[in-house]
Amino acid sequence: MSRKYSLLTVGNAIIDILVKVEEKFIGDNGLDKSAMKLVDAQETAELYAKVDEATERSGGSAANTAVGYGVLGGKAAYIGTIAKDQFGTIFSHDMKAAKVAYNPIYVEGKPTSQSIILVTPDGERTMNTYLGASLDLSPEHIDKEIILQSDVIYFEGYLWYQPPARLAFDHIVKLIKGTDIKIAVSLADQFCVDAFRDDFKNLIANGTIDIIFGNEDEIKALYEVSDFETAMQENAKTNVLSFITRGAKGAVAQLGNISETVSVDPVSNIVDLTGAGDIFASGALCGLERGLDLSKSAMLGCIAAREVIQHMGPHPTVDLIKLVEQANLFDK
Amino acid sequence: MSRKYSLLTVGNAIIDILVKVEEKFIGDNGLDKSAMKLVDAQETAELYAKVDEATERSGGSAANTAVGYGVLGGKAAYIGTIAKDQFGTIFSHDMKAAKVAYNPIYVEGKPTSQSIILVTPDGERTMNTYLGASLDLSPEHIDKEIILQSDVIYFEGYLWYQPPARLAFDHIVKLIKGTDIKIAVSLADQFCVDAFRDDFKNLIANGTIDIIFGNEDEIKALYEVSDFETAMQENAKTNVLSFITRGAKGAVAQLGNISETVSVDPVSNIVDLTGAGDIFASGALCGLERGLDLSKSAMLGCIAAREVIQHMGPHPTVDLIKLVEQANLFDK
Repeated sequence: MSRKYSLLTVGNAIIDILVKVEEKFIGDNGLDKSAMKLVDAQETAELYAKVDEATERSGGSAANTAVGYGVLGGKAAYIGTIAKDQFGTIFSHDMKAAKVAYNPIYVEGKPTSQSIILVTPDGERTMNTYLGASLDLSPEHIDKEIILQSDVIYFEGYLWYQPPARLAFDHIVKLIKGTDIKIAVSLADQFCVDAFRDDFKNLIANGTIDIIFGNEDEIKALYEVSDFETAMQENAKTNVLSFITRGAKGAVAQLGNISETVSVDPVSNIVDLTGAGDIFASGALCGLERGLDLSKSAMLGCIAAREVIQHMGPHPTVDLIKLVEQANLFDK
Repeated sequence: MSRKYSLLTVGNAIIDILVKVEEKFIGDNGLDKSAMKLVDAQETAELYAKVDEATERSGGSAANTAVGYGVLGGKAAYIGTIAKDQFGTIFSHDMKAAKVAYNPIYVEGKPTSQSIILVTPDGERTMNTYLGASLDLSPEHIDKEIILQSDVIYFEGYLWYQPPARLAFDHIVKLIKGTDIKIAVSLADQFCVDAFRDDFKNLIANGTIDIIFGNEDEIKALYEVSDFETAMQENAKTNVLSFITRGAKGAVAQLGNISETVSVDPVSNIVDLTGAGDIFASGALCGLERGLDLSKSAMLGCIAAREVIQHMGPHPTVDLIKLVEQANLFDK
């Protein structure tokens, strides 16, 4: 495949408000650790008033994946809606700076979406997302030209919470009918899987989704089993290409009966797990695009994710390409 | 002295847009390395379009000093003007989070001020400041109650570029007449000293300014000499309490014939010098408030500054109080 963009991602355009908190803060505020919770404007303001000084930077699951892909040298594009405000300016600047093709899609009446991300000392992040402008993503914002110029179109699972965005997914599926353009979907988090299990399973079973990305908890939730091996056995039957991350245990790439497990070097200093799964997807998709096998593609995902968890913020900050080259994954 | 606030700082309320650039970028864009340049809205947009992904956080010279003072356990307050926009929300949140008393003073017609700070690999920062709402600070924004509840009132020298803010300074000086409230002024940068040398010298000579903060370049510029020792000899004659920082060479505290030189442990990993001088002032003022002598107060400034240059951003991120306690500066 050799269209203009080797990856197009679609998701909620979000500014992350990163703040360090003690472990106790999570429980004291009735939050589920490591989960993403949708909050309204008032809840956002109340939580914000309780937290320490923060650092702001661009985020958003699928946007992170596009940025990571761009940093790895891939040709990425992005679709997501923002407001004409300072957070929108930051978001569109940072996408362009990461060489991601993004024509800002402005909507009115709501601020750019934001997420207060509470980072505990163990590097886990508990997200409190206030969806503003990104909530309005709908079929009307889908540019057919961009869709048909993309080899792989990746959707963050969070979009399933938003009926107009779910319609945008259908619209895109219709647009690419008869082409060899691939659809990838991340499972987002286990609550998302619980909420939309049937839809995800149908889309996998009927071949609409070509590639899924998820973690151990999400794949177990998808098949409603408590055991990882059983979940993967169920998943194998669907014959969908799957990349499942397992934290310090590495990742598994699976396609039917083929199952490749890759391990990662331990990280002594986990700073912030924000974006780890997103950047894993950047790496794995980059591997596939470069013609690597499943095992090497998963390894590339692990290398990228391993870098991003060693600093605050969801985007790679060192020369990720060098790290990848050092790993000798690409044929010369 | 034991008023409600032991330190009140007055300055430009600014959001820092921190971005890493290569050394070459500074020259290619015709910038003076390590200086602060005032830019307009269009120049800001043009520069922003050229730089990589950024991180946003609260800044502003005098605001940094208040935050550092608050982190050290002191009772700090702040005066500065912002807009009712997202950057204004970030600024006022971060001041409150740092326990700095700040009643947001909103002005209309301009966005909250921002500064694109280019951080080169040596940790030096080149600032490109677009003054929006903070430019409107004027005597009408000065709350007499807060002024008279403060032991020390600290002004960033950058305010001298702004005639209404300069009037606010005069207004404050009039309000505190007959009290023992002290006035401290930072010399900001050498261009600022060049522009307002006569005014600064008059205010020192006539006893309006009680304490000055500056660095080696600024004190040389103040007395128009090329040699540090000569500058300090001239400064001694004014009998103004002075804290002059010298980068890796430490700092000098001077009052008339008394001159105390303190050295600092070398820092192997300078990440970002943003706010080093501001936080030095937090430490030194905290020392004075705690009744420390000049030498120990300067040492406290050095310890605080040394911490802040080892990470991105102008605010202390570790438990600065612990660092200070380890140095055994305070009597038990």
